[in-house]
Amino acid sequence: MKSNKKLEILICNDDGITAPGIYHLIQAAKEFGNLTIVAPDSPQSGMGHAISVGKPLRLNKVHLEGETEGWACSGTPVDCIKLATGVILKHKPDLILSGINHGANSSINIFYSGTMSAAIEGAIEGIPSMGFSLLNWSMDADFTASKEIVKILLQKFLENPFPPHVALNVNIPDLPFERIKGIRITRQAQGRWVEEFDHRKDPYGRDYYWLTGKFCLEEEGEDTDIWALENGYVSVCPVEIDATAHHAIPSFNMWRLPHHFEHPSQVEEKF
Amino acid sequence: MKSNKKLEILICNDDGITAPGIYHLIQAAKEFGNLTIVAPDSPQSGMGHAISVGKPLRLNKVHLEGETEGWACSGTPVDCIKLATGVILKHKPDLILSGINHGANSSINIFYSGTMSAAIEGAIEGIPSMGFSLLNWSMDADFTASKEIVKILLQKFLENPFPPHVALNVNIPDLPFERIKGIRITRQAQGRWVEEFDHRKDPYGRDYYWLTGKFCLEEEGEDTDIWALENGYVSVCPVEIDATAHHAIPSFNMWRLPHHFEHPSQVEEKF
Repeated sequence: MKSNKKLEILICNDDGITAPGIYHLIQAAKEFGNLTIVAPDSPQSGMGHAISVGKPLRLNKVHLEGETEGWACSGTPVDCIKLATGVILKHKPDLILSGINHGANSSINIFYSGTMSAAIEGAIEGIPSMGFSLLNWSMDADFTASKEIVKILLQKFLENPFPPHVALNVNIPDLPFERIKGIRITRQAQGRWVEEFDHRKDPYGRDYYWLTGKFCLEEEGEDTDIWALENGYVSVCPVEIDATAHHAIPSFNMWRLPHHFEHPSQVEEKF
Repeated sequence: MKSNKKLEILICNDDGITAPGIYHLIQAAKEFGNLTIVAPDSPQSGMGHAISVGKPLRLNKVHLEGETEGWACSGTPVDCIKLATGVILKHKPDLILSGINHGANSSINIFYSGTMSAAIEGAIEGIPSMGFSLLNWSMDADFTASKEIVKILLQKFLENPFPPHVALNVNIPDLPFERIKGIRITRQAQGRWVEEFDHRKDPYGRDYYWLTGKFCLEEEGEDTDIWALENGYVSVCPVEIDATAHHAIPSFNMWRLPHHFEHPSQVEEKF
């Protein structure tokens, strides 16, 4: 029974080890197990599933509030998970928690999110993983309700099996707990960013661009993460690591790609 | 009919605008349409779906071999696609081609790959997109066979519909064309990297780590990308942008999460 032992929990984020969000995640999770914190030493928002291929990584031990010890890593959120499981931890953790992110990671934002990429890396490594995001970008955001949601999900994790190679993408509306209606299992809403670059000139007359944009929801389903959040619910969306578009395989079979080339040398061999 | 008009093709990669792979992709694609090349100004391998959130982006016009004009971008592969469709191009391109990557992007490597993230960004934006990778990391790799494969797929693209919001992940074995057996539609093999960090000391006695590792295939299916490549076939794997683990939703429904909280104020309201 999971509930009879203390969990070994690995904690990461993408806003950096000093962000309020990870502090509140630690506060919510500490009663559930032994925590190991490995997080970026600087903000890594928008890093997606990036890893450090061409540069070495540093790990520095840091003392967080209370007795909690952590490691600040010079790399990306995914680097943190790889270093934690490959170097720091003696055994595979029971659970990875990532966040609490300052800002939403619903719909296709999961692709850009370092928070969710850390959780997805956990799922790739076969470790149950959850990413948490609060719909408030501010460093002064109120994480009181988020901590309650984290605790509810950790209690449910203790009581239930977790399907293999899946991560949970948990998004929390920016509401006081008493105004959050409930928790819904959702699917990723279809949408995209419509880019509106802020085009400027530097002091030397040369162009540069800031990436901005507006999120554009492309569907109206009521079982999506966006619908849940807009209607006052916490969204819990299970995330896949098999990226194959299985539904599209029949369409591409219709392309009649040459499954076997008839190379001249092979043709000659027939005679 | 797609085949009666010249395609508008956007070309990107992650090895950088001066890499041999993108040069050979341009050579293979140019007979099919008007090309716009927007690629990183430096190598961006392993950047995954990273975007530049906190820093401005530069775009510099460069002259490539022949009359081809391109833009070197200071950002990631996904930044390149966003700048191309948001700033450089007047109209949505008909097709995005990314690569040809120096090295494989099969199985879960799709998550780390900047090449495939550029193609996936295209799929998010509703543009048919294909990423190409050759199973040879060397800058001196022979792209002769790869160019033939690109041409075959572009011809098939002209003749067939392309399902919406899907990208193709094309991996090409490092073989002369006459030894490539054929082209297979595949699914992503289940596997992961087993990390083996190279732990060193810098001249000041401080630790640092290089990320290395060994790919570990975790299944034996004969319909996977890895199987195709190991058996001399080109792998064409359709890739999804809906990351929802639909198959896992029933498992999480069993968690009986509180769909509706009974907040004290609501309870009071009942009386």
